Amino acid sequence: MTTVRVPPNPVADQQFLADFTTMSGFGATPAGGVERQAGTAADGQTRQWLAQWLSTRGFRVAYDRIGNQFGLCELTPGAPYVLVGSHLDSQPRGGRFDGAYGVLAAAHAVGRLLRHYAAQPGGARVNLAVVNWFNEEGSRFKPSMQGSGVFTGKIDLDAALSTADTDGVTVRAALDALGMRGETDVFEAGSHHSPGGLSVCGYAEIHIEQGRELDKAGVRLGVVPATWAANKYEIAVVGAQAHTGATAIADRQDALLGAAKIVVALRDIADQHGEQLHTSCGQLTVYPNSPVVVAREVHMHLDLRSPDDELLAAADEQLRRACAEIEVAADVRIERRFAHTWKGHTYQPEGVALAEAAIDDLGLSHMQVLTRAGHDSTNMKDLVPTVMLFIPSVDGVSHAEAEYTHDADLTAGVDVLTEVVARMVESPR
Amino acid sequence: MTTVRVPPNPVADQQFLADFTTMSGFGATPAGGVERQAGTAADGQTRQWLAQWLSTRGFRVAYDRIGNQFGLCELTPGAPYVLVGSHLDSQPRGGRFDGAYGVLAAAHAVGRLLRHYAAQPGGARVNLAVVNWFNEEGSRFKPSMQGSGVFTGKIDLDAALSTADTDGVTVRAALDALGMRGETDVFEAGSHHSPGGLSVCGYAEIHIEQGRELDKAGVRLGVVPATWAANKYEIAVVGAQAHTGATAIADRQDALLGAAKIVVALRDIADQHGEQLHTSCGQLTVYPNSPVVVAREVHMHLDLRSPDDELLAAADEQLRRACAEIEVAADVRIERRFAHTWKGHTYQPEGVALAEAAIDDLGLSHMQVLTRAGHDSTNMKDLVPTVMLFIPSVDGVSHAEAEYTHDADLTAGVDVLTEVVARMVESPR
Repeated sequence: MTTVRVPPNPVADQQFLADFTTMSGFGATPAGGVERQAGTAADGQTRQWLAQWLSTRGFRVAYDRIGNQFGLCELTPGAPYVLVGSHLDSQPRGGRFDGAYGVLAAAHAVGRLLRHYAAQPGGARVNLAVVNWFNEEGSRFKPSMQGSGVFTGKIDLDAALSTADTDGVTVRAALDALGMRGETDVFEAGSHHSPGGLSVCGYAEIHIEQGRELDKAGVRLGVVPATWAANKYEIAVVGAQAHTGATAIADRQDALLGAAKIVVALRDIADQHGEQLHTSCGQLTVYPNSPVVVAREVHMHLDLRSPDDELLAAADEQLRRACAEIEVAADVRIERRFAHTWKGHTYQPEGVALAEAAIDDLGLSHMQVLTRAGHDSTNMKDLVPTVMLFIPSVDGVSHAEAEYTHDADLTAGVDVLTEVVARMVESPR
Repeated sequence: MTTVRVPPNPVADQQFLADFTTMSGFGATPAGGVERQAGTAADGQTRQWLAQWLSTRGFRVAYDRIGNQFGLCELTPGAPYVLVGSHLDSQPRGGRFDGAYGVLAAAHAVGRLLRHYAAQPGGARVNLAVVNWFNEEGSRFKPSMQGSGVFTGKIDLDAALSTADTDGVTVRAALDALGMRGETDVFEAGSHHSPGGLSVCGYAEIHIEQGRELDKAGVRLGVVPATWAANKYEIAVVGAQAHTGATAIADRQDALLGAAKIVVALRDIADQHGEQLHTSCGQLTVYPNSPVVVAREVHMHLDLRSPDDELLAAADEQLRRACAEIEVAADVRIERRFAHTWKGHTYQPEGVALAEAAIDDLGLSHMQVLTRAGHDSTNMKDLVPTVMLFIPSVDGVSHAEAEYTHDADLTAGVDVLTEVVARMVESPR
């Protein structure tokens, strides 16, 4: 335990928990969750609160052109930065831990390290920044992981800013309404061609697991060695509008019947492959959606994920064949409108080893857990060495108000993140 | 042909078609349909136009407390009224013939009879009124056939006025915005306890068939002897919100999977019973409807119809069993929130005979066609002797912009309606 820079401290734990409670009040729902979709007033309030928290503690707060929020702290003038963070935006009626925990943990961990290095000048070889990525959730503006996607050059900035929600409000307009869209970029990275911009040399993120592996095993920390691959599709099922009462069954081209058959087929495919394949349809919108009208069109979002690229490709082929059969059975046309896919990828093994050693030195249990959800670290790991950590989710509940993590796991996570980041800034890879 | 009161007349036909074209301009959609859901601005414009048409021709225009619009014409002071009409409201992106044709046909038919009886005082033993029933379609405010439902005492007035659309606008507010909610009722009928109100002694309606029986058989007129029975249900499928990526398939309580299985099961039930059973789900709304969230709840409208009450009951039992199985298979709860059902009912046979004789005397072909859709006449037939007529729909298309009926069928329908109403007012049953 002698190698730990900032030893666990009950007073610091209570400060963290008090801040977490305060932060969870923004967009709070009666059932204990939060609703602060990207760029909404509730998201803006949470961001404003974080900006004040950071400014008060000597961070310089800055926004890039896609609205990512940074709290910058220069320890070694001219050196690159290790970023530490996650996202403050939530799903509709989401949980209060998803993303928000990681941002506050980053702020506290970096804050502790500032005080530590202030007493040990020259200890840190690089600089530190807290980051709150814009629109990780993708519920209001699609796709998800938009802020880190633009940052890492995977998503075009102008396309992202022009993305509209269902009311026609664009990302640009939403960020401008909050006064949180930067004129220039802060960092020179990915597609950010920012003359004189700062450089990035590493990224660390801590997040609730959103699954039940840690909870089931009774293990305190997860270290993420790799991501699941994912294929996400937007499709349209096109039929013909008709009268539900008067139109003979044989004459119908029922878009909703076609869509329902896809939802059922998608689950059947998952059931054939055990725990190595997750399939879902979470969004389905019917036009015109009237009780006495056979639907002319249905828009759906399909989501297939697996730790195994080959299995995912096989499931995708099963889905393609199922859709071809459904087109005939329901007399509809199925069109793919948009696809967002990523292969399974590993995080740098040096980062996994660094994290495991840090957790060992803190005397906590840990195991490796693949991430099935996408995270901003999924984007960042392709740009710079990245460490991704999980703390347990009780019963694996997530994207729901009942999402819960015990206080002791929250504060242990901050301790681990602090130590991991310290090791990253002392020996940048 | 000698018994026909108002012989077919090409000039009158052209006037009718010109008026129909003018009327179809209100809420017109680019693809040739109309969108004027009940109580919207477009519905109000169409009603305003009709009010002016009626006033110009000497009708007294009046509204009752649920916004039914009447054009009254007193031929025999103190005598009861035969009502003739249908509805001007439409489905979202609906056809321009559904309902609206019947209202305009009523206005022209009654207009012709006014001129006829003005030349033959004492010929009519009762009075005549054109009626445009409020909210027949039920797409914005549920249930359908609301205006005639309140008129005939089947729907409570206050409940109807308090019905809200998805934006929270009530029927009361929508009618008030149009200035078309009456302070008192016009007729004493059903639940309309209107002191000194007028009395009703008959009802006639003409409508497009919305099926393809007449079109297939090449027959010009349908006389409706009976309705199909219908069971309409609003149900909620209740699951648990979760993360699409992270949550294991075995842990899911996916409300959308449950809903999709119901849609598929409902169609399977129809496929087992040939043409004697129609089943549909036209409205399905997912909560929270985000691409990466397993749905916590889905609200659906189910619709089962048959000419055979026993078959409908058997199908209902099949649906009940299917839902019980789906509750287990998808780990969801299925709740019935609202039901609107009606048995198969016959129209008065005297009215069918009267209509068939009138059509014979006009030298047109006719056949009996059951109505699978509900109509305002479905309500009225339980209150007073009622005649329901159909003209052909090309390919049976309805509740869709492509809905179409040939001009010659439109004008023949007005001729038939005129003659049918003449016989009703000369010998009220």
